[in-house]
Amino acid sequence: MSLRWDTSEHIVLGRFVVKWLFITAVLGAAVGSAVAFFLWLLHQATVIRWQLPWLVYFLPLAGIAIVVVYAKWGKNSAGGNNLVMEQIHEPGGGIPKRMSPLVLFATVATHLFGGSAGREGTAVQMGGSIAQALGDLFKLNKPDTRIFLTCGIAAGFGAVFGTPLTGAIFALEVLTLGRMRYEALIPCLMASMFGDLACSMWGIHHTHYSIIAAALHLDDAVAKITPLISGKVALASIFFGLAGYLFAELTHTLSHLFTKYVPTYWVRPIIGSALVLGISYLLGTRDYLGIGVLTADGTGASIVNAFKGDGITAWSWFWKLLLTAITLSSGFKGGEVTPLFFVGATLGAALASLFGLPVDLMAGLGFIGVFAGATNTPLACTIMGVELFGAQCLPYFSITCFFAYLFSGHSGIYLSQKMESAKC
Amino acid sequence: MSLRWDTSEHIVLGRFVVKWLFITAVLGAAVGSAVAFFLWLLHQATVIRWQLPWLVYFLPLAGIAIVVVYAKWGKNSAGGNNLVMEQIHEPGGGIPKRMSPLVLFATVATHLFGGSAGREGTAVQMGGSIAQALGDLFKLNKPDTRIFLTCGIAAGFGAVFGTPLTGAIFALEVLTLGRMRYEALIPCLMASMFGDLACSMWGIHHTHYSIIAAALHLDDAVAKITPLISGKVALASIFFGLAGYLFAELTHTLSHLFTKYVPTYWVRPIIGSALVLGISYLLGTRDYLGIGVLTADGTGASIVNAFKGDGITAWSWFWKLLLTAITLSSGFKGGEVTPLFFVGATLGAALASLFGLPVDLMAGLGFIGVFAGATNTPLACTIMGVELFGAQCLPYFSITCFFAYLFSGHSGIYLSQKMESAKC
Repeated sequence: MSLRWDTSEHIVLGRFVVKWLFITAVLGAAVGSAVAFFLWLLHQATVIRWQLPWLVYFLPLAGIAIVVVYAKWGKNSAGGNNLVMEQIHEPGGGIPKRMSPLVLFATVATHLFGGSAGREGTAVQMGGSIAQALGDLFKLNKPDTRIFLTCGIAAGFGAVFGTPLTGAIFALEVLTLGRMRYEALIPCLMASMFGDLACSMWGIHHTHYSIIAAALHLDDAVAKITPLISGKVALASIFFGLAGYLFAELTHTLSHLFTKYVPTYWVRPIIGSALVLGISYLLGTRDYLGIGVLTADGTGASIVNAFKGDGITAWSWFWKLLLTAITLSSGFKGGEVTPLFFVGATLGAALASLFGLPVDLMAGLGFIGVFAGATNTPLACTIMGVELFGAQCLPYFSITCFFAYLFSGHSGIYLSQKMESAKC
Repeated sequence: MSLRWDTSEHIVLGRFVVKWLFITAVLGAAVGSAVAFFLWLLHQATVIRWQLPWLVYFLPLAGIAIVVVYAKWGKNSAGGNNLVMEQIHEPGGGIPKRMSPLVLFATVATHLFGGSAGREGTAVQMGGSIAQALGDLFKLNKPDTRIFLTCGIAAGFGAVFGTPLTGAIFALEVLTLGRMRYEALIPCLMASMFGDLACSMWGIHHTHYSIIAAALHLDDAVAKITPLISGKVALASIFFGLAGYLFAELTHTLSHLFTKYVPTYWVRPIIGSALVLGISYLLGTRDYLGIGVLTADGTGASIVNAFKGDGITAWSWFWKLLLTAITLSSGFKGGEVTPLFFVGATLGAALASLFGLPVDLMAGLGFIGVFAGATNTPLACTIMGVELFGAQCLPYFSITCFFAYLFSGHSGIYLSQKMESAKC
């Protein structure tokens, strides 16, 4: 028997890489640029809303405009992230090209007028829609189209948060609960890196969360991974998982309620707006409107402030969760992930003194943990912890994301996520 | 419709965690302690061999003793890692308890007398065998036994290298090429962390590879992830993948040749010893014997020296690969992973000047890349990069491990690894 050295196998592998290198570079450039434009617009919208506070009174009108445009010209774009995932599971009608501009402007309008929403959904939908268009252009066959759509998710996600490896793993992990398949591994990594590269070449900078700073805790007990802290982190992560569960179920429940009790579809965003603005008025703060990374004057509840333990209350996480669920279920557009970061970071910060752990560590753990629970992507979120906060607390990141994943139960924000196997 | 809040679901999840917390703590304590004892013995054996160089002339006798003991009293222990994986795929006869002491002493004997081998196989087999024994004691049912055996792999791997998250992901990823299932996620993480904790409580310290030091490259071009360096890393990783392929295929081929042309089983280690010692004599160095992390006098080819670019030649990687393949295929015991680290680190260091990249970066990338290729575990190896070398070069780690995984083709050192889907 002679040594197996199958050159033809490696030629196939080489051609595979060259082919995907080319098409994911095109995809990454397109998606990364679209995301850069989106992030720039989003920033402008946020700043303008801060400068012109009366804009929020037009939130109902913006909502009506969004749902009417989607109903009249959206085709099936309203399917959103779920449509992208469905087309990967069961390629059918495809993702309409118009999804990209629609979700872009609808999200920016949502933010301009004070809806509480995120941005990853927008990036993922632009990624999916651009991938569909390019895939048709390149005449990809069905299996390749599925991989390419997955690449679209990876490129969008990687670019919007500046976390390429997280984007790639997220795209693979989000499709099916409890399983990850590797066919799209290399294409997704390339797409995500190209997307991130293109986005940063447009001069986009991502918020840096100064957290778990090596300098801050290096000589501290937290830097050493101890059983006691690990146990505390695991316990706290049960709360993160339950928060993810609550967010997912509340969003689905409100969507059902709106559909059932408000048959006239364009009335839904009016009610949603009234609730969002009314609750904000009663709370006496606008901190829970918009993207929530920063606040207008730098004080108050925001993701950045959660890491310092400033400006947040014990219930900040709940109000953001509630306002986002209302905003998205009543017809506004945007993502769920940045609000989940907000919910997690403020919940973590609120729990910090209870658990006797540093507030920045707990905010960081909540940030990735609630996201892991609500989307059922424990590995992607663990890696996001490393990409955003460094390697020092990796064991805690993994405990957080794995436990939050478990305790979000068989729930999740993406209804098109397949369930491969029960969590336990 | 009211909000779904299924308390019974969360009670089930809570009981799941408490149950696995308890049994993985027992498993982790047992496996971590066994691994600590093994690592201590291995260190003693290595030091004694350095002090008594004539011990290598007894390598043939040690080999005969090993294969005879396995043949007469080993039951099916000779199945090794593959037996552990088979019992997870298709629980059947189980893993014999005697596998633990057998593989422990056979590996130590292999190292004491100068065979070229590693240690993760030993740790994994001890983990699997101890998990089987404890699982029988706890009267686990079939599905739980499968998870528990996977936990045994995780605990053994996590403890032997001091990389708990890598251990958990490795255990999940290694079973099936191209797919990862999540049922065992939390149990494996707990087992791996308990195993690592127990091992370090016995005072075991793991070799620290001073590599990609933040201080060294922080202001350097390497610290910024650039397309040029990414492309170079991807190209270099093709070589890492091919080295993994070569190692796997050479080991399988030599095993077949020994079985076919040397029917008397105890003659095989005599021939293997003669080849290992003869090649070492011709090369004029004993650097490729034993575990290879360090050398007797600190100079020459070793993993540690590869990171400095000292003492290695352009072909160091090949000689280690060859001697390890001969050692293991002729009947000696030990793991493949540390030799794969050696092959990768020396190959990376040898390629560094060709690619114009720092030698420590390339050694680190080869270290994880060849391992990823030979075992088809790209995610575990990416995370190992973070656990050993920090987060700074994470994008390069992922490129390396994913490309090496791809270019090792449909090959791998574990014949019981199932193939779920083609790599492309």
